Amino acid sequence: MKISIREAKIEDMNAVLNLIKELAVFEKEPEAVEVTVEDLKRDGFGSSPKFHCFVSEVDNKIEGIALVYRRYSTWKGSVLHLEDLIVSKSMRGNNLGTLLLDEVIKYGNQIGVKRISWEVIDWNQSAIEFYEKKGANVMRDWDVVQLDEKGIKAYLSKL
Amino acid sequence: MKISIREAKIEDMNAVLNLIKELAVFEKEPEAVEVTVEDLKRDGFGSSPKFHCFVSEVDNKIEGIALVYRRYSTWKGSVLHLEDLIVSKSMRGNNLGTLLLDEVIKYGNQIGVKRISWEVIDWNQSAIEFYEKKGANVMRDWDVVQLDEKGIKAYLSKL
Repeated sequence: MKISIREAKIEDMNAVLNLIKELAVFEKEPEAVEVTVEDLKRDGFGSSPKFHCFVSEVDNKIEGIALVYRRYSTWKGSVLHLEDLIVSKSMRGNNLGTLLLDEVIKYGNQIGVKRISWEVIDWNQSAIEFYEKKGANVMRDWDVVQLDEKGIKAYLSKL
Repeated sequence: MKISIREAKIEDMNAVLNLIKELAVFEKEPEAVEVTVEDLKRDGFGSSPKFHCFVSEVDNKIEGIALVYRRYSTWKGSVLHLEDLIVSKSMRGNNLGTLLLDEVIKYGNQIGVKRISWEVIDWNQSAIEFYEKKGANVMRDWDVVQLDEKGIKAYLSKL
C-alpha cells in the first residue's frame, strides 16, 4: 500500500467533494452539502483562492483530504484554520489522518502563522485525545455559533 | 447621546486596538495581544483586506467594534465569520452590541453568504440567550481547538 500526501489539483475536486459528501452522510446531514464541483474548482483555484487543500492518496486513489484557509485573529493576526480533515471510511486506521495533519502544521509554519485552529465535536473522545497528545488546546468552554441562511432572512425580517 | 454605526476607516485602528486590548484585559490575557496598529492598518486596508470592520460611535467616539472576515465551508461555500464583537465597558447596556450585530447580519446578507458564524464562551449565559433569541444555533457540542505558536514548534520537532 503506497501512501502519499500532496497538494490538491483542480482535477481532484470531484474526489474531494465525494469525501465531503461521505462525511456529511456519516454526520446524518447529506442534504446539507450545497457546494458543487464547479464551486470548489472556482473557489480553490482562482486568482485569489478561498482555500488550500491537501490530499492523501493510497495507490494513486484519493482517500483523504485536509482543507485549510486563513482566518484573522485580533490577537495574533493572520492564522490558519483547518476546516475539514477527512479520511475515507475504508482507509481509517492507516495513519492518513496523522499524515494530513502533519502536512497542515508544516504548511502553517511555512506561511508563518502564530496559530492553527479547528473544531471538534465533544463526544469524539478519540479525536480529542489525539489532538491533545499533539499539543493542541481543546477549548471545551468555547462553543461554535451559527446563523444559517434561513436564520439570516428571519433576523433581517425583524429589523 | 448620539449613536451611529459605520464602516471602520484606517485611522480608526488605534481606537479599534484599544477595544481589543480592553477585552483581553477583561479576559485576563492582556499579554496575548500581539497585533499592532500597523498590523491592523496593513491587514484591513490593503489591496486584499484580511478583515472588514464596523465601528459604533457614541457622540463621535468609538465605543464598539464588530470585526468580520470570510471563511470557507465545504458545505455552504463562502461564509462570514464574526471574530469580535466588542463594546467598551462604559457603554454596555446602550444597545451598541445589537446595532453592531444587525450591521454584520445585513452585511452577510448583502455579500450573499449562506451562513454567519461566531464563537461564544459557554458560561456567558446572557450572550447565549441573546444569540438564541436572534435565531442563532449555539452548538454546545462543538468545541474550538487551537494549536499555538509554541505548540506548532513542538509538533514539528517531533516529526
